[in-house]
Amino acid sequence: MQITSEVLERAIEELAKLPGTGRKSAQRIAIHLLKQSDERVLTLADSLVQLKKSVKRCSVCGTITDEDPCSICSNQKRKTGVICVVEEFQDVYIIEKTNEFRGRYHVLGGTISPLDNIGPDDIRIKELLERLANDDEPVEEVILALNPDAEGEATSYYINKLLLNYDVNVTRIAYGIPMGTELEFIDEATLSRAFASRTSF
Amino acid sequence: MQITSEVLERAIEELAKLPGTGRKSAQRIAIHLLKQSDERVLTLADSLVQLKKSVKRCSVCGTITDEDPCSICSNQKRKTGVICVVEEFQDVYIIEKTNEFRGRYHVLGGTISPLDNIGPDDIRIKELLERLANDDEPVEEVILALNPDAEGEATSYYINKLLLNYDVNVTRIAYGIPMGTELEFIDEATLSRAFASRTSF
Repeated sequence: MQITSEVLERAIEELAKLPGTGRKSAQRIAIHLLKQSDERVLTLADSLVQLKKSVKRCSVCGTITDEDPCSICSNQKRKTGVICVVEEFQDVYIIEKTNEFRGRYHVLGGTISPLDNIGPDDIRIKELLERLANDDEPVEEVILALNPDAEGEATSYYINKLLLNYDVNVTRIAYGIPMGTELEFIDEATLSRAFASRTSF
Repeated sequence: MQITSEVLERAIEELAKLPGTGRKSAQRIAIHLLKQSDERVLTLADSLVQLKKSVKRCSVCGTITDEDPCSICSNQKRKTGVICVVEEFQDVYIIEKTNEFRGRYHVLGGTISPLDNIGPDDIRIKELLERLANDDEPVEEVILALNPDAEGEATSYYINKLLLNYDVNVTRIAYGIPMGTELEFIDEATLSRAFASRTSF
């Protein structure tokens, strides 16, 4: 096959490395960009460069931010007494979308996973304990909102055990049947959990 | 919802404008890029900028190229006497992949489509006639390889009629049952076409 444009080929190759983008989608995207205005493509390219250049981690909660501390940690209107512990910073976005939670976050940056050689010291557990030990902002409740898989469970149990030494209420979000579905389509593990966690009507 | 990084948000918005990329995939791509090395992201961004800056159209065949004329038109090993007419430059890539065709191409840049106000003068038909009139590179055969839809058919008929005035053999690629499939799954239009175009065994 004779390639008529190395530049096009290179762009397709680079795009094909993105997650969820095969060679065909990469080709479609490259051809789409070729037809766009110069400005449009420069804006896209610049937004990616800025993404790497300007984005930092919040030194308090560990989420992605442009300014440190992040807009949630520096928001005086949010409760300081409640910390929601999540695995990754994208979980913060997901929970924020519900508008349900008005406290602060703590991003672990992963879960304890012996198989992947990730121990308690490799995720931000120490930083969580430091926040709890800080008397300037007393914490009454820690809500664990980790993923309901083996690693998430193990990490939740580990943190819960550590927090027994602190004067703090540890809760976890409810796991059960998702809304708007039918029992027929629910896997057994979820259904068992929903029974075990039943509440009075 | 509180956004902790405007820069991340902007990158997601820009990525979500790409074809086949919704907000969720854009988010996944942005998060993936955040975890990549600076170099990797700069390479991607640069490849997109170069795409707009350096890519041109070949003045002979109309395909996408870095140098004019393109590597196919300037390849002395390829037959000059056979021109394959296609709708878009990506068709050149598709045909080149088969390694079946060793002649030259002519990219129309579209099809005649009265509904979209695209007439014969809006696609590169005039340029095709000029190539046929050029005695330096005599053309014996023009292969029409347009898409088998209404516009492709109409454009093929139009070009065929024009070429009656030229001393050139006009052919078209075969339309019929695709390889490796079963008759059961073939639509009626294709099946009718396959019968009408049957060849002796």
